[in-house]
Amino acid sequence: MYISTKEIQVTYGDTDMMGIIYHANYLRWFEMGRTQLIEEVGYSYPEMEKAGFCSPVLKVEITFKKPVRYGDRVFVRTWVEENHGLRTTYGYEVVNGKDELCALGSTQHIVVRKDNFKPIRFLNYFPEWFRKYEEIKKK
Amino acid sequence: MYISTKEIQVTYGDTDMMGIIYHANYLRWFEMGRTQLIEEVGYSYPEMEKAGFCSPVLKVEITFKKPVRYGDRVFVRTWVEENHGLRTTYGYEVVNGKDELCALGSTQHIVVRKDNFKPIRFLNYFPEWFRKYEEIKKK
Amino acid sequence: MYISTKEIQVTYGDTDMMGIIYHANYLRWFEMGRTQLIEEVGYSYPEMEKAGFCSPVLKVEITFKKPVRYGDRVFVRTWVEENHGLRTTYGYEVVNGKDELCALGSTQHIVVRKDNFKPIRFLNYFPEWFRKYEEIKKK
Amino acid sequence: MYISTKEIQVTYGDTDMMGIIYHANYLRWFEMGRTQLIEEVGYSYPEMEKAGFCSPVLKVEITFKKPVRYGDRVFVRTWVEENHGLRTTYGYEVVNGKDELCALGSTQHIVVRKDNFKPIRFLNYFPEWFRKYEEIKKK
Repeated sequence: MYISTKEIQVTYGDTDMMGIIYHANYLRWFEMGRTQLIEEVGYSYPEMEKAGFCSPVLKVEITFKKPVRYGDRVFVRTWVEENHGLRTTYGYEVVNGKDELCALGSTQHIVVRKDNFKPIRFLNYFPEWFRKYEEIKKK
Repeated sequence: MYISTKEIQVTYGDTDMMGIIYHANYLRWFEMGRTQLIEEVGYSYPEMEKAGFCSPVLKVEITFKKPVRYGDRVFVRTWVEENHGLRTTYGYEVVNGKDELCALGSTQHIVVRKDNFKPIRFLNYFPEWFRKYEEIKKK
Repeated sequence: MYISTKEIQVTYGDTDMMGIIYHANYLRWFEMGRTQLIEEVGYSYPEMEKAGFCSPVLKVEITFKKPVRYGDRVFVRTWVEENHGLRTTYGYEVVNGKDELCALGSTQHIVVRKDNFKPIRFLNYFPEWFRKYEEIKKK
Repeated sequence: MYISTKEIQVTYGDTDMMGIIYHANYLRWFEMGRTQLIEEVGYSYPEMEKAGFCSPVLKVEITFKKPVRYGDRVFVRTWVEENHGLRTTYGYEVVNGKDELCALGSTQHIVVRKDNFKPIRFLNYFPEWFRKYEEIKKK
């Protein structure tokens, strides 16, 4: 199982009046972690789009364990949780600079044609990428 | 079971380059729905904050059924899914102007003191609000 | 001079840890005001996009006069400040529920082809819309 | 004149349906550049907040020269444009990976007490920080 670790810059605009990071921002962090994982294993989401496909989110889950505050260092760890012919699920952990777990989550994705949003089989259209995910996924 | 319906204004800034609403924005819509539900049943989140408490999110789940596009009308329907002494779960549906289901979700919340983020029992500190939720919750 | 008034719903996610609305959000409010002004005078930005054009921002200016807080009512007033063959400038005022001026601003736009981002003359491609702006603009 | 250069990670959520970065996001990038400049010259915005002050924005200006797209590398260069006893103005340039100028801008700030939002003189309360800005500012 391969885990990608990405440091996130926490901005002031990400905070809310509770003094913590507003919860919706974690989904942007997951996206940043996912993008880096894809690059680290040799692929590119922008290339997928140039080829005429995109990969919308089907499902998200986040469990918040500990608030993140402005000034904290934040890291997101991303891995491939499940990999099917049609759907890919990424797993995420958000930790702070003391390596305390702040949040856990997952996002499930399909691949669709950009022009009509019809789902395609990731396995058939991107077979090498799919096999790479088989190799690095959680076991 | 009481369901609050709130119309959301979809803005251009909420879209992404797939031409659909970026998924993280649904969490802001859920917040808008939740706030309106609270007001409709006679309470006020800003008043809770003035009293020294706030209500962070513990858990979120969203399942996306159909993309929302710029120019679509969007409504979020919000209800109380579960109501315990310590935790409240809200349920949400996002529908478009043709009443097609676009997303389903839930958010789970606790109530904490603003100064130290220690959880308190919603039931003990806001007993009338809690009873109102008992009355309107999903059965 | 025609002024469009749009009520904005202030969300918790729009606040920052100063307890006020984060400044970048005013640009989204300006967009909401601008969209409503366009609709009120009989046109539609989504229709412009369907016709193969879009209208990126060339310049923005905002002066902040008074903080907006969560729980405040907020209104944005929008008008056409200047209207040239190539560039349109909108003016904005943000006021709170006591009609106190919270911010002033402007955004300047061009119209470009969606496929290549080449500027076109608003006057030539949308002559009626242009004339409507001549009629309602600031004098 | 000291110029701080910060690389920004462009995320998918920052794009809009024109396929470019939504204009309001540049203000978050300016904030990231400003924060890094402050750190590089030996100060800390989070420390200012812990001392009971914060620094709201009075005025912003942005001129957009060239769209930024998902997949582009983006750098923001930040400097102190003006430094008065009461107001500090930062200047910004956004450039892409080919060092093409994508946007120019400025933000003007005051320092206020967090509890009552009354302005204080930056010069009197943070004299060393102020002198550092005198040293590094645009001449």
